Amino acid sequence: MSALTLTTLLEFPLVEPGDNLVDQLLASLDITAVALKDDDVLVLAQKIVSKAEGRYGYLNETQPSEAAIELARSIDKDPRLVELILEESVEVIRQRRGVVVVEHRLGYIHANAGIDKSNISSDENNPRVLLLPLDSDASAARLRQALAERIGKNVHIIINDSAGRAWRNGTVGMAIGTAGFEPLESLIGEEDLFQRPMEVTEVAVADELAAAASFMMGQADEGSPVIHIRGAKLRPSKQGSRSLIREKSKDMFR
Amino acid sequence: MSALTLTTLLEFPLVEPGDNLVDQLLASLDITAVALKDDDVLVLAQKIVSKAEGRYGYLNETQPSEAAIELARSIDKDPRLVELILEESVEVIRQRRGVVVVEHRLGYIHANAGIDKSNISSDENNPRVLLLPLDSDASAARLRQALAERIGKNVHIIINDSAGRAWRNGTVGMAIGTAGFEPLESLIGEEDLFQRPMEVTEVAVADELAAAASFMMGQADEGSPVIHIRGAKLRPSKQGSRSLIREKSKDMFR
Repeated sequence: MSALTLTTLLEFPLVEPGDNLVDQLLASLDITAVALKDDDVLVLAQKIVSKAEGRYGYLNETQPSEAAIELARSIDKDPRLVELILEESVEVIRQRRGVVVVEHRLGYIHANAGIDKSNISSDENNPRVLLLPLDSDASAARLRQALAERIGKNVHIIINDSAGRAWRNGTVGMAIGTAGFEPLESLIGEEDLFQRPMEVTEVAVADELAAAASFMMGQADEGSPVIHIRGAKLRPSKQGSRSLIREKSKDMFR
Repeated sequence: MSALTLTTLLEFPLVEPGDNLVDQLLASLDITAVALKDDDVLVLAQKIVSKAEGRYGYLNETQPSEAAIELARSIDKDPRLVELILEESVEVIRQRRGVVVVEHRLGYIHANAGIDKSNISSDENNPRVLLLPLDSDASAARLRQALAERIGKNVHIIINDSAGRAWRNGTVGMAIGTAGFEPLESLIGEEDLFQRPMEVTEVAVADELAAAASFMMGQADEGSPVIHIRGAKLRPSKQGSRSLIREKSKDMFR
């Protein structure tokens, strides 16, 4: 029988800059009584990776540019936050009150450059926000490597984030960093049930698993930023998640 | 421990028009040794629902309109297929060679109106394609109702389809029909880890489960159009999946 099991890791601590996520992962796996096996998948919420990397932006220390001030006025948002969004972006795609959709410097199209204010401890006198990791694929690869060295298991890593979609309400998880496997599986050359070539040629498996993990993270009452997945048959690969991002030349919507 | 388990139902038969999906589901659950419980989720591939409902379009019997002929020429596609796409749609959103992105009459933005040629038995002398169900929410509600009557269990139903995204490569599963639960969960009024109101206020839980199920369907070598999910805590609701579709007035991308 083909089955996939997703387990919420228990008692994952609040992450502070400089924390060793591998130590925290191993402790939490232990508490949850999950013994990692080769080919297991660990999905980490972007927030804990960003926090461990100290990716905070401090509003009082941010000097908004002319462009940020102008954009902030038209969308009714804090110009310092808009400055941080623009610094994290390569292009503004759309804007409307309270939200600006940008191409993040890592390539994904994301509202507010993925900058977040929820679930962040913040001093009222020095408010801060959390930026996406500097390079999510590199962060995922480091975690995978460190786990291999520490416990001798080859696991797959996904760093996920909640994202809005163009035409649908609500967020879904998407993969912003991966390590160990092919995030985009090609079916080119494969046949359908009636021995004809498949029409749909690529499946974003990393995004499907990221969405499943986001569901689990959202189901927990307490903060549950790591989900363990067992039973996924993934194709090994050294590439990260860039193949998930549509090239601008093939983008019909900007 | 909070866990979610997805199981591929075994030996689901090839579906023909008029087939009773409930009979087929119960037989396949039996073979897979899964006894349904209240609050379990069954995710059905759109294809089997469409097939049971006989939602075929026959190209030789399709008379393309002027508009279809013109569009077909500009995107280099069979004008009869384009006619069927237009009949299933309310608006053409974008077009390029081989593909037309439309607003389907049920509201979702979908390439080629979700019309499919893969995994369909088709006579070369009378080629056919498969359209989406007439009303996926109604189909889901009927299945849920029938299962309640037959075995006395209240399960949740998702009808899923693979869809492309505006800015990302590869398809992911999305929910085109639901029954039994709130597909879009609001977090309005809830607090984050630091007792501040949540910023992200809506999660598309039906799409996240649809994506997880699509992953499983894609992992099976044989056709596996039904996935059983246990462990999801869903909020009961009589509404279908319409809340997942962004209103046109709030759409920044058309």
